[in-house]
Amino acid sequence: MLPLTSPLEMQFPPVVRFGDGTIKTLKDWVVQKGYKAPFVVADAANAQRLDLLGLDTFTCFSDVVPEPDIPNLKQAVAAAEGCDVVIGFGGGSAMDLAKLVAVLVSQDCVFEDISGPHRALPRKVGLAQLPTTAGTGSEVGTRALVTDPATLSKVATESVHMLADLAIIDPALTMTVPSRVTAATGVDAMAHCVEAFTSKRSHPIIDNYAMMGIELVGRYLKRAVDDGSDAEARTGLALAAFYGGVCLGPVNTTSGHAVSYPLGTRHKLAHGVANALIFPHTLAANAAVVPEKTAKVCHALGFEGGSNEAVLAGARAFCESLGLDMHLSAHGIPESDLAEMAKEAHAIRRLLDWNPVDLSVDDIEAIYRAAY
Amino acid sequence: MLPLTSPLEMQFPPVVRFGDGTIKTLKDWVVQKGYKAPFVVADAANAQRLDLLGLDTFTCFSDVVPEPDIPNLKQAVAAAEGCDVVIGFGGGSAMDLAKLVAVLVSQDCVFEDISGPHRALPRKVGLAQLPTTAGTGSEVGTRALVTDPATLSKVATESVHMLADLAIIDPALTMTVPSRVTAATGVDAMAHCVEAFTSKRSHPIIDNYAMMGIELVGRYLKRAVDDGSDAEARTGLALAAFYGGVCLGPVNTTSGHAVSYPLGTRHKLAHGVANALIFPHTLAANAAVVPEKTAKVCHALGFEGGSNEAVLAGARAFCESLGLDMHLSAHGIPESDLAEMAKEAHAIRRLLDWNPVDLSVDDIEAIYRAAY
Repeated sequence: MLPLTSPLEMQFPPVVRFGDGTIKTLKDWVVQKGYKAPFVVADAANAQRLDLLGLDTFTCFSDVVPEPDIPNLKQAVAAAEGCDVVIGFGGGSAMDLAKLVAVLVSQDCVFEDISGPHRALPRKVGLAQLPTTAGTGSEVGTRALVTDPATLSKVATESVHMLADLAIIDPALTMTVPSRVTAATGVDAMAHCVEAFTSKRSHPIIDNYAMMGIELVGRYLKRAVDDGSDAEARTGLALAAFYGGVCLGPVNTTSGHAVSYPLGTRHKLAHGVANALIFPHTLAANAAVVPEKTAKVCHALGFEGGSNEAVLAGARAFCESLGLDMHLSAHGIPESDLAEMAKEAHAIRRLLDWNPVDLSVDDIEAIYRAAY
Repeated sequence: MLPLTSPLEMQFPPVVRFGDGTIKTLKDWVVQKGYKAPFVVADAANAQRLDLLGLDTFTCFSDVVPEPDIPNLKQAVAAAEGCDVVIGFGGGSAMDLAKLVAVLVSQDCVFEDISGPHRALPRKVGLAQLPTTAGTGSEVGTRALVTDPATLSKVATESVHMLADLAIIDPALTMTVPSRVTAATGVDAMAHCVEAFTSKRSHPIIDNYAMMGIELVGRYLKRAVDDGSDAEARTGLALAAFYGGVCLGPVNTTSGHAVSYPLGTRHKLAHGVANALIFPHTLAANAAVVPEKTAKVCHALGFEGGSNEAVLAGARAFCESLGLDMHLSAHGIPESDLAEMAKEAHAIRRLLDWNPVDLSVDDIEAIYRAAY
């Protein structure tokens, strides 16, 4: 694990409650903190089960769109006026919007004033996050992504003020997630761990979280996909997603996420599906430069690596075993768009600069074509 | 690691900075937060190097006594009047006092109003913790211990409001810790991990932290004792102490700490030395009931366990290899006090109730006699 190469800043919600039934503790927290006007940010599916929150009074913004964009955020901020605590209840889209709403509501500024790194002002309201998928790990982190409709690119905002006061990770909330979404979100959690683990700025302390997360996905993802009522598997995946979120803070993702972003921003593929489609290709592309770490990843996921071809085949088979169709063409991506997507992905330097291998625009286009 | 047996609440300082040189970031944090009147709680040794904090203006309470008692705390609270941020700078004694000062200053209450679990009110001031030993892990936690001079017992206070806003764990601060203190504090960190790992309320998520901490102590403690300038070893131990602190929150210690407390409260032995003297005996006493976990502990510390006798001998040899005299008699404990100490230790139910083996007063007295 050591020697430790560089200083590390870790950010955690000060209170993390993990385990079945922990959602029942939300109300007490709200009462103890003296909050009177909770504002819930929920996606459409979770808006159907707001009673689980156990709150007596609250308002809810349930118009969260997948891969939310700036107009969607502005609607949510407007709806939040007058609240004293924001509660994210959903997957990454709902929780990312909740973070941004929390730093924007009752402030004399708009999104454009705070986007990017470290520009948000201290929050005037509380923030609690309750993930309902085991994927993004957004409940742990200080980053939120929204799409700019003008450029179709994802705008990353980061601030310690977007860190939740409380994260409640209740795996029981994920029991009803459909098999396909379970697969996609689980791959997303795994990708956070793998990309941080193989990043040029990987850190030994974070590597521990990464490997724990990858091992949990290797052990439990197929089980949860095959049987959504497998409570042990759901719990393992919720923990893996949390660990993935820990990896995102100080290290973050690299090429896997960068190359998959245009699938979401341009073609509205779900974030996890997009990651799964790209993951085998970037894992293989990096394998020669980080062979030991790649071998550990492959082993934890249940296949043996080795050559680039073996890594690619093994990772693809892993994803296919989860029921994912691993062809871009099957997901409505027009072949004519691949060159433009490659340019767009290549421009995401905040991620690609940390990839162990330098990928050119042509390399990225070749990945899209190989995945097509 | 799984199945997970029960819900878990973890508490972390929202921002943890780890690594050599991170102390230099304190000043920026104070400025960014807008604090104007920092109050530093430092023990006598660290009061000699307050310049390392890089602060322009501050006041300092440097009369922290080892194993601080309630009058010592009240002096510190009085001195803190008017501050807007409390900074603990030292070992567990300084950091524990800093926690209590932070929840008592500018409040309309005294220690007796908040002692025990979950009675403190939200802090009116900020709190940062900077450990200068690799031992207590107090920088992570929500508990503080002070001795009641009337009863000679340790009063544990616990509150989420005693959680620091910022922990800066700079291993360079530990480079000057003398060999004997390095040994004792390292054993303390290890004991936190071992006792949480073997506790009746151990938790799989916390077990990971425990084993990482024990392995680090096994790899690095003797190195740091033998050569205090070994930066890698110092870094490893600082991380082990942090992990030990993580174990304390949701799980906490058991018999090792309970049985060692009277050595500190009645006879002013340093906390780590007291722990080391008792550790082999409680590890051995529990071995038959938690054999697999005990075997992992022994292996990580570099010896093989097995029978109670083998565990005792191995753990004692481990401590002796660190230069610790493992006889109570060598530390000024009067033999005539052992029976009274055993009664006192046995009364610490908040810890002993979680020990895997039920230890009677006679069992505890037998431990003292064996260690004498």
